Amino acid sequence: MSNSYGKIFRITSFGESHGAAVGVIIDGCPAGLEITTEEIQHALDRRRPGQSKITTPRKEEDKVTILSGIFEGKTLGTPIAMVVNNKDQASKDYNHIEQAFRPSHADFTYTAKYGHRDHRGGGRSSARETVARVAAGALAAKLLEQQGISIRAYVSQVGNIKLQKPYTELDLSQIDSNIIRCPDGQTASRMIGLVEEVRDSLDTIGGVVSCVIQGVPVGLGEPVFDKMHAELGKAMLSINAVKGFEYGSGFEGVRMRGSAHNDQFYTDEAGTVRTRTNHSGGIQGGISNGQDIYFNVAFKPVATILQPQQTINASGEDITLQGKGRHDPCVLPRAVPIVDAMAALVLADFLLRQQANKVQ
Amino acid sequence: MSNSYGKIFRITSFGESHGAAVGVIIDGCPAGLEITTEEIQHALDRRRPGQSKITTPRKEEDKVTILSGIFEGKTLGTPIAMVVNNKDQASKDYNHIEQAFRPSHADFTYTAKYGHRDHRGGGRSSARETVARVAAGALAAKLLEQQGISIRAYVSQVGNIKLQKPYTELDLSQIDSNIIRCPDGQTASRMIGLVEEVRDSLDTIGGVVSCVIQGVPVGLGEPVFDKMHAELGKAMLSINAVKGFEYGSGFEGVRMRGSAHNDQFYTDEAGTVRTRTNHSGGIQGGISNGQDIYFNVAFKPVATILQPQQTINASGEDITLQGKGRHDPCVLPRAVPIVDAMAALVLADFLLRQQANKVQ
Amino acid sequence: MSNSYGKIFRITSFGESHGAAVGVIIDGCPAGLEITTEEIQHALDRRRPGQSKITTPRKEEDKVTILSGIFEGKTLGTPIAMVVNNKDQASKDYNHIEQAFRPSHADFTYTAKYGHRDHRGGGRSSARETVARVAAGALAAKLLEQQGISIRAYVSQVGNIKLQKPYTELDLSQIDSNIIRCPDGQTASRMIGLVEEVRDSLDTIGGVVSCVIQGVPVGLGEPVFDKMHAELGKAMLSINAVKGFEYGSGFEGVRMRGSAHNDQFYTDEAGTVRTRTNHSGGIQGGISNGQDIYFNVAFKPVATILQPQQTINASGEDITLQGKGRHDPCVLPRAVPIVDAMAALVLADFLLRQQANKVQ
Amino acid sequence: MSNSYGKIFRITSFGESHGAAVGVIIDGCPAGLEITTEEIQHALDRRRPGQSKITTPRKEEDKVTILSGIFEGKTLGTPIAMVVNNKDQASKDYNHIEQAFRPSHADFTYTAKYGHRDHRGGGRSSARETVARVAAGALAAKLLEQQGISIRAYVSQVGNIKLQKPYTELDLSQIDSNIIRCPDGQTASRMIGLVEEVRDSLDTIGGVVSCVIQGVPVGLGEPVFDKMHAELGKAMLSINAVKGFEYGSGFEGVRMRGSAHNDQFYTDEAGTVRTRTNHSGGIQGGISNGQDIYFNVAFKPVATILQPQQTINASGEDITLQGKGRHDPCVLPRAVPIVDAMAALVLADFLLRQQANKVQ
Repeated sequence: MSNSYGKIFRITSFGESHGAAVGVIIDGCPAGLEITTEEIQHALDRRRPGQSKITTPRKEEDKVTILSGIFEGKTLGTPIAMVVNNKDQASKDYNHIEQAFRPSHADFTYTAKYGHRDHRGGGRSSARETVARVAAGALAAKLLEQQGISIRAYVSQVGNIKLQKPYTELDLSQIDSNIIRCPDGQTASRMIGLVEEVRDSLDTIGGVVSCVIQGVPVGLGEPVFDKMHAELGKAMLSINAVKGFEYGSGFEGVRMRGSAHNDQFYTDEAGTVRTRTNHSGGIQGGISNGQDIYFNVAFKPVATILQPQQTINASGEDITLQGKGRHDPCVLPRAVPIVDAMAALVLADFLLRQQANKVQ
Repeated sequence: MSNSYGKIFRITSFGESHGAAVGVIIDGCPAGLEITTEEIQHALDRRRPGQSKITTPRKEEDKVTILSGIFEGKTLGTPIAMVVNNKDQASKDYNHIEQAFRPSHADFTYTAKYGHRDHRGGGRSSARETVARVAAGALAAKLLEQQGISIRAYVSQVGNIKLQKPYTELDLSQIDSNIIRCPDGQTASRMIGLVEEVRDSLDTIGGVVSCVIQGVPVGLGEPVFDKMHAELGKAMLSINAVKGFEYGSGFEGVRMRGSAHNDQFYTDEAGTVRTRTNHSGGIQGGISNGQDIYFNVAFKPVATILQPQQTINASGEDITLQGKGRHDPCVLPRAVPIVDAMAALVLADFLLRQQANKVQ
Repeated sequence: MSNSYGKIFRITSFGESHGAAVGVIIDGCPAGLEITTEEIQHALDRRRPGQSKITTPRKEEDKVTILSGIFEGKTLGTPIAMVVNNKDQASKDYNHIEQAFRPSHADFTYTAKYGHRDHRGGGRSSARETVARVAAGALAAKLLEQQGISIRAYVSQVGNIKLQKPYTELDLSQIDSNIIRCPDGQTASRMIGLVEEVRDSLDTIGGVVSCVIQGVPVGLGEPVFDKMHAELGKAMLSINAVKGFEYGSGFEGVRMRGSAHNDQFYTDEAGTVRTRTNHSGGIQGGISNGQDIYFNVAFKPVATILQPQQTINASGEDITLQGKGRHDPCVLPRAVPIVDAMAALVLADFLLRQQANKVQ
Repeated sequence: MSNSYGKIFRITSFGESHGAAVGVIIDGCPAGLEITTEEIQHALDRRRPGQSKITTPRKEEDKVTILSGIFEGKTLGTPIAMVVNNKDQASKDYNHIEQAFRPSHADFTYTAKYGHRDHRGGGRSSARETVARVAAGALAAKLLEQQGISIRAYVSQVGNIKLQKPYTELDLSQIDSNIIRCPDGQTASRMIGLVEEVRDSLDTIGGVVSCVIQGVPVGLGEPVFDKMHAELGKAMLSINAVKGFEYGSGFEGVRMRGSAHNDQFYTDEAGTVRTRTNHSGGIQGGISNGQDIYFNVAFKPVATILQPQQTINASGEDITLQGKGRHDPCVLPRAVPIVDAMAALVLADFLLRQQANKVQ
């Protein structure tokens, strides 16, 4: 198991979906950061189930409690422990899968790897674990915000409906203006319609979350293995249901010629080094170059569907399984705050690592 | 800097492109593995410059020397140090960039991050560093081979020319049968033609390397952060020029519905658990499920082009720069052994980590 | 901050002395280990304040709650989170030190390092943090016990009263037969008398905890930096109030000649390799050799004394400070389970690391 | 195996005693540090065999070669690789031990752990490995020197001859004024006499190295596990032949009462916080308090003696073994630069880690 992420700003996540609680420890958050429980709760509320008609109707308050590391409103430099109790556990919804391996879930692999598993709600393999990431990400984001760094993820594709505008033509302040979290109102409406259609046909659908990070100083990222985009990639791929990551020109860029793909440098009027295009996605040689960092994250359709499916049980016998309970037809809107959180954790860690690269 | 990769089978890479040498230490390779210098050299020869008319004509022998860790043909369990001296350094080719920031190279970011840089051939940011990865990967591959695990990367796209067949319809033994390393002869010819055309127009082109890993036992991968695909993604994204990673159904899979995307389990005649489809790419919940693992890696067009380009110098002044020296018009054929090596390093590490998960 | 210990069996500790709770996450405990809350509680009870007339009269129940990682009585292979709420906080006892730097405490260094501190009861620098270690150690000890490895720490010195017998002449089952935890009844009585005398004179006293580890298989320990004794040393030195560590012949051994100090090998009747003496303390080249491992840990006198002392406040002004509250005159008896726990954590980690050294 | 030390300023050591070379990579050394090969060589010369009549007469030049990471006299921020070729290998001296387990050596444990070993000169378990530490330590010391931090180790005990003066009464500039490296001339003469007597009786003797670190800023050290003294302890205990570590009042301090042991704070005329005594050894709560850090390291007598000894061979049969070759009768004088190096590596790492604790 590897439930820690980050080298300096390091989080350790714990908790099963239907155990007593999920939570996180942050070790390495600088002392003196002002943060309130409300700020952390706000981030969790964006991820919470039951927030709209297109998410799971499960009702979980996901109230965060801080156990350590914050004193008189400021971080102590000591480990920050946060816990969210599991309230609405409805474990009986899961009795039918105690002995079944749900298709495209982790039931089979967890059982094979660990010998037994907490089958209730997927146990540790449930996306409920991301509560830990979002809570920790709220502190990382606060740290970054004070350095002028902003992170904004949004839904750019649901099924075949793809937002055609690049982020530079979008008003990113509008991300939360609709329930799918796509900042383009018209596209958002079409996406919502598709999710409803999919939900009503007892099916699920995938999509893409795009993310833009602005205000990053030049010099963050640690070659040759911990390149900025390599860590962003790992962090995103570690989120449940993610199947791909690309940054800058990405998979489409492979079709270009170098003469068209190269980003020319120039010095702007303020004396800052900039590039005329940004196919590099703000990262060169694994290090931020001061331009916007942007990337895409692919999410597969949710594996739990409310239709009968063929699969096997723990004895290897064929069975028919039908999803029960309350599930998301599309994880995309709730994935947005998780992408935000993981990006913040990556950036905060690189910010602190860069401090360690020199003697002041 | 972060020049180590792996938790148990851990490599540390060193060396500048035109310094005295590049090399690697492997710490954590099990004792008793039989390996010869020739086996390591063979892997390096697949990466070597000057191997064909479509790669850089630079002549470097890249002869590996083993300094420690192997005794009487077997690994000792102690650190294995390997060095490749830099022979054909032609540093004078680089005088013209000493004060220039080449477009889409790391000259600017390295200078900003570290204060100064070894400008010769890109110094540490050069893909020459991957010599270290390939040498280390040869030992990892040997270890995996003994467990019945095989890794085969190949070129599946160059520019707009995309191999339409899935890996299951290809004869992967034919990868090295042509100089572009595409196992489909017809597509390979078209790709080679495109690279020659691009080279002759003093330009460069990108592409995609695909990779298939077979024979992986069930249970490798360490959730929730070090998922199998998250580490594969990080490892691939850490290779020079990589812009994207996807596994299984990848970015295309987001268009599917869950009912079509889900992989149904069944038990085969030998009593082994299998899935009827493999959109999961052999990984569920971050853990290998015994099916083939497959993924794609996007490489951007090489940044060094032999045409004049606008950029700035270290004083921020506009200059015109023209690439000199001997460069690859397309990195794809030489990227294949690097993808092989990084995949082997990821798998070997997970194999050993899994041993630590239980008490025998 | 660095609040994690261990490479495979890895714990992360959190909590301030008078915050909401202290606790720990274990990441990397193998799945399938049977453990009950009672077993963990038993270890905590040995460390609990108020357990005898020679420990602090503070009353804290230190009831442990398991939040994750254990299902139906067995570990899941997922992170095990355990929490102990802080009940008897009596924070008002600490108002007088809010602005004072107590002599030989960490008030000054924490304030200097982090800018502010939780002054109540020493905050994070309090030995209350060791609750986390003891809870985690209970699982490590259970794991080791199943492999036939036992760990037994005891008090071998208090002030000038030093147990003259080596561990081989002691009945280690008698450690808990008296309140000072010295297995020699006569010496124990004298030690208890000394602690009472010291307590009554409003003073404190130091001592030594010795520890014996038996049943360790040959081959544990990871040279050249993570040698068995180097990790034991670090683990012990990380306990509050520890000033020294020695193993085998230790500091006295430096007086010996090699001809007397060397441990001759022989093969016993069962065909097992043994040594005739054990100055090596069961460790050669950093690796266990199958003989008993034994070591000593020096604890300084408790810094909090109930007498007036000269010191300064946060403004640097001279002040007189007098300890209040309820404190231990001697930490030794309560240090015994902490030494046990840290030794178990070191051994469990090495046991699992050794599994990763080979492919089964 | 674990051949890396340090979290930010991280070294990885490699090499067998009679293999091709020993060497080290430093990853994480800040860019811009000016260093010459001569400075590194100077440190190695202090450790070199054959430097005086009381060390082994082996002749090894131990010439260091820098392979990467330094350009135009300054560190690049990239990995610094350094190699020392093994010249005077005299491997035939070791034929007699190929099948023997030397008493109190690591022959048995290495064979048991790894299945086979490089028997020549102890292979990886040889103290020749410390060449890597000393080379790396030279860069760490240079970094610290620029911050006003000095480290001075010296021999304070050989066998029963113990230097009675505390470091505050010694002239530490005289450490290298004699071949035993004890800064008190009279004691040094007696120690040298003892080593000669021991050598002439074909025996060996142990001793203690003391070390003083001055100029350390307040705030270095990372509780709760990576306390300053815990890392110093681990680093020292990882050196060949070390059996114990104590700092500040150490093992003797356990006899004291708290009222006598506590270090009172005061503010000096310059407004600096100081303590009137320094039983704390410059460290409180695991964090440097600005006072001198001092500690002792116990070294056992060298295991190789030129007398016949009883032991067993690899088949478990009793044999008589007699040391051949050229060996040190006492490691102490050559251990001094190794203690210096390890202390520098610990301090440099903490210095950089502290930079990562805050956002500038």
